[in-house]
Amino acid sequence: MKDSPLVDLDTPSAVIDLHRVHENLDRIAGYCTEHGLAWRPHVKTHKTPQIAVAQMQAGACGLTVATLREAEVMTAVAKDLLLAYPPVGAQKRRRLTELLRTGVRLTVGLDSRESLEIFSAATRAAGAAEATALVELDVGMRRTGVGDPGAAVELARRIEEDSFVEYGGVMFYPGHLRRLGSDPEEEMDRLSKTVAGFLEALEEAGLPPRIVSGGSTPTLWHSHRVAGMTEIRPGTNVFNDRNSVAAGAATWDECAYSVIATVVSTAVPGQAVIDAGSKALAAETPLDGLTGFGALLDRPEVTVRSLSEEHGVLELAGSEWRPRVGDRVRVVPNHVCVSVNLQERLWAIRSNGAMEEWTVEARGR
Amino acid sequence: MKDSPLVDLDTPSAVIDLHRVHENLDRIAGYCTEHGLAWRPHVKTHKTPQIAVAQMQAGACGLTVATLREAEVMTAVAKDLLLAYPPVGAQKRRRLTELLRTGVRLTVGLDSRESLEIFSAATRAAGAAEATALVELDVGMRRTGVGDPGAAVELARRIEEDSFVEYGGVMFYPGHLRRLGSDPEEEMDRLSKTVAGFLEALEEAGLPPRIVSGGSTPTLWHSHRVAGMTEIRPGTNVFNDRNSVAAGAATWDECAYSVIATVVSTAVPGQAVIDAGSKALAAETPLDGLTGFGALLDRPEVTVRSLSEEHGVLELAGSEWRPRVGDRVRVVPNHVCVSVNLQERLWAIRSNGAMEEWTVEARGR
Repeated sequence: MKDSPLVDLDTPSAVIDLHRVHENLDRIAGYCTEHGLAWRPHVKTHKTPQIAVAQMQAGACGLTVATLREAEVMTAVAKDLLLAYPPVGAQKRRRLTELLRTGVRLTVGLDSRESLEIFSAATRAAGAAEATALVELDVGMRRTGVGDPGAAVELARRIEEDSFVEYGGVMFYPGHLRRLGSDPEEEMDRLSKTVAGFLEALEEAGLPPRIVSGGSTPTLWHSHRVAGMTEIRPGTNVFNDRNSVAAGAATWDECAYSVIATVVSTAVPGQAVIDAGSKALAAETPLDGLTGFGALLDRPEVTVRSLSEEHGVLELAGSEWRPRVGDRVRVVPNHVCVSVNLQERLWAIRSNGAMEEWTVEARGR
Repeated sequence: MKDSPLVDLDTPSAVIDLHRVHENLDRIAGYCTEHGLAWRPHVKTHKTPQIAVAQMQAGACGLTVATLREAEVMTAVAKDLLLAYPPVGAQKRRRLTELLRTGVRLTVGLDSRESLEIFSAATRAAGAAEATALVELDVGMRRTGVGDPGAAVELARRIEEDSFVEYGGVMFYPGHLRRLGSDPEEEMDRLSKTVAGFLEALEEAGLPPRIVSGGSTPTLWHSHRVAGMTEIRPGTNVFNDRNSVAAGAATWDECAYSVIATVVSTAVPGQAVIDAGSKALAAETPLDGLTGFGALLDRPEVTVRSLSEEHGVLELAGSEWRPRVGDRVRVVPNHVCVSVNLQERLWAIRSNGAMEEWTVEARGR
């Protein structure tokens, strides 16, 4: 390993290449400018204020959050947040009230009357607050979101009639798209038609959406194919990972995050064991067509074949490389967001080798 | 949900049923007493000092740790620790030195000369220290450990010759055993033969092991079938989980850990979405024969079909139950150790309903 600061870190440690981070951000910002899309990156990937600052400086219109913890931390960075998660329950209502009292401009995506009532009650309790609700649409992922235009109109009307929350439009997450081998043009055209069905119904009902918020990292560079979309919310692309490269959304050289690990055992022939296991990388099944739980940044032909909690087993069959106990490697995980969530801190490395310790502050609840 | 304190927790939150924890600990302690085995529970499952105290009070001879962080935290609870992980690198050497200076009696399992040198150097630097090394054996898991009796004798002799570290015996982890449908008697007899091959070679070489440390949760109740074993190191059984029940090591009523979650969406028919996803439960593939990522404690027929980072999708096909937005559930994950590692705190619930907040202090590095 050339970078000398990395030799001094205890392992496993998560590092980010800041040069690559900035390149990734500029690339997204350029794409959004070219296609007239607002860019509202999802902070779930990094949960780190310093990265959020870099996103805002690169041209983000605001931030997307999934949890109230992320929202609470990110109010220090951005005054315009989208909570892309339906708030439910008295605890969330109280936290939303406190959040709105900070003066943040808050938009919430939701798919039920119950969730709207929570948001409305929080807004009322907070006094004068800028609170906007979006109807979450299910565009095929079958996770959350209303599934048909009639239900979308019904919920949009209910928001429109609410005395405290403003109706803003719609939100969706196409997390089911861009699997290995799928045709992006065909997929995105189908998505565009699905979205159009919702938009037309809302317009006909006199509820034209001002905001049409979509996007994901796998679909990122095809976002302009979705007619009517006004903003995108990619998360992963700030760092990228093995899955985003496999999905064609990034190249291996655009992977900015890796976990530094030490080879701790070569006792079993044909493999090497590193000290990054499922508690550092996360044992997430990769996209269809891939195997293993990560690959080495500097030797992508070497994959992490299996994981225990504190052990990663490197498969050496595809490589001439034979590591020794004590050697260090950098592992790119399948899914960076869940690996970051396992870190207390990220070591941010500048091009000149300088290293800063950043706390992953928005972890936890 | 009957327990009223649980209604007041924000979700997702991890709770433990202390009555069940104590029952689980007493059951293991009783088994070990009956079979003349020392019990050295692995703290990786809970990483929480209060649970470690309960284990020591229930009769544990000491604790097992996988990381130096776990060791550093647990020195406050126990003066006899086994680090079941090979230490490698200068950072680990320095931390081992500091650890030994606390006066802890430390045993380390290792499988290489490099790792022995690290441990020996740390012991030398710490001055008078009680430091014992075990040879880690590979008994079939193919992860770490020396794979043949000759290599075990060679490493044992090297330890014996070391001026600072005492030779203690052997350690192994049968993590490959007790898959669904396997025959425990046959498996354990085969394991016993494998272990015997190592023990005989060591005895013939004049290096009879004083400590023969083995055991896992899936093999727990069959440990007495392994001839010569002196201690076991089960981790998971303190809490249990979906996998340990499936492996026949526990009953569903012995599951002491669950994640409280709220139903946040029922918009997509045939399912309900809860706010516990892969960042609360961990997306660990279950044992062969199971599907999904967890099941409801109170309705085990309802499983977590899929996970996103903050969403868990409950499969309702096998149940009459139709939850509403706002309902709360308790989820038992597939693998409790990695779910605990995602929590900042555990809420410990006593039989009388009293609730205490315990920090998962030995998380992280």
